[in-house]
Amino acid sequence: MASTSTSSTRSGQIRAAALDLFTARGYEATTMADIGAAVGIRGPSLYKHVTAKQDLLVQIMIDTMETLLAAHSSAVASASDPVERLRRATEAHVRFHARHRQEAFVCNREIRSLTQPHRERVLALRAAYEQRFRDLIEAGRQTGRFQVTSVRLASYAILDLGMGVAVWFREGGELTEDTVAWQYGQFALQIVGAA
Amino acid sequence: MASTSTSSTRSGQIRAAALDLFTARGYEATTMADIGAAVGIRGPSLYKHVTAKQDLLVQIMIDTMETLLAAHSSAVASASDPVERLRRATEAHVRFHARHRQEAFVCNREIRSLTQPHRERVLALRAAYEQRFRDLIEAGRQTGRFQVTSVRLASYAILDLGMGVAVWFREGGELTEDTVAWQYGQFALQIVGAA
Repeated sequence: MASTSTSSTRSGQIRAAALDLFTARGYEATTMADIGAAVGIRGPSLYKHVTAKQDLLVQIMIDTMETLLAAHSSAVASASDPVERLRRATEAHVRFHARHRQEAFVCNREIRSLTQPHRERVLALRAAYEQRFRDLIEAGRQTGRFQVTSVRLASYAILDLGMGVAVWFREGGELTEDTVAWQYGQFALQIVGAA
Repeated sequence: MASTSTSSTRSGQIRAAALDLFTARGYEATTMADIGAAVGIRGPSLYKHVTAKQDLLVQIMIDTMETLLAAHSSAVASASDPVERLRRATEAHVRFHARHRQEAFVCNREIRSLTQPHRERVLALRAAYEQRFRDLIEAGRQTGRFQVTSVRLASYAILDLGMGVAVWFREGGELTEDTVAWQYGQFALQIVGAA
C-alpha cells in the first residue's frame, strides 16, 4: 500500500514506517523501538526526530483529513450544478481512498487510540467532511434535482463507498481507479435519485 | 456494542472478553493474561477453556461469517423476484452489521492476524458471501430487471454499505435499525438501476 508521506527526509521515513506498522500491527502493539528499527535508528536518536508515538498517529490522522478536505474542495470548486458537484465529490472521495488505503485504514481503526485534544480535532475534521456531503445532497434536494428521503443516510451511504474502496482496491487489479471512481460517482447519483 | 456469543458459559464469557479486547486494543496487543483478567481467571486455569488466543480469533471469525451466511439464506429463501431478493439480502446484510458491530470490526481488521489454514477458510467464506450478491445482481440483470455496468462493482458498493453501518450505527441514535435497513435496501435497488 502506498503512503502519502514523503520518504525523502528522516522524518518522512519515520512517519512512513509508523504508518506501515500501525497498519500491520495496530497502534497499541507498535513500539517506538519497532519504528526505530524499521528505519535503522536505535535508541535516543529517534527522539531527535519525533517526541512520541502519539505524535506520529496525530500527524498521520490530521494530514489525512486535511488532504481529503483539500481534495474535496478542489473537486467541487469547478462545478455549480448539484449533480456534477456530487459526482465530482464522490469521485475525489473514491480516488483518495484508492490511493491512501493505509491512511484510511489507520484513521478508521485508531480513532480511539488518539488522546485529547487530538481526538476531538480529528473528529471535528471528519464531521466537517461529512457535513460537506450533506450540504451537497441538501442543495440538490432543494433545487428538486435529487429525490432523497434522508439526507443523512444518503451521505453515509456515499461516504461508506469510499471506505470500502480502501479495503478492497488493489493497483493492477481487474478494476482500475478510473473505472471505480466513475462507476461509484454514478452510484452516488443513483442513491440520491438524481434526475 | 453487543456480542453474538452467549455469555452464560465460561467459554462464552472468555470469547466475549476476547471480542471486547480485540476490538479495543487489537489482536496483537491483547494477551491471554488480559483475557483471563477480564473474566477473573488467572494463569493456567484459562487454558482449561481455550488453548490459544488464535483459537478465539478463529472462532469469532468463523462464527461471524457463518451467521452472516445463514442470515442471507434466510432472507432470500422466501422470495423469487430478483428485486425482492436483493432488497431482502441487503436488509439482512445491514441488520447484521448494525447488530454485530464488534464482530464486523474485528473480522475486517484482523484478517491478517489469522494463521493458515484459518485465514484461507475465512477468506473462502467471505468470498462465498460476496458471490451470493453477485449472483443476485446477475440474476436481475439477465432478466432485464437491473441495469448494471459492472456486477462486481455493484456488489462491492452494496456490501460496503453494511461495513459502514457497523462503523457508525448506534442503538438509540437518531436512525433506527429499521430505518437504515429499509433505506439501504432501497439504495441497493437504485445502485443496480432496478426498474
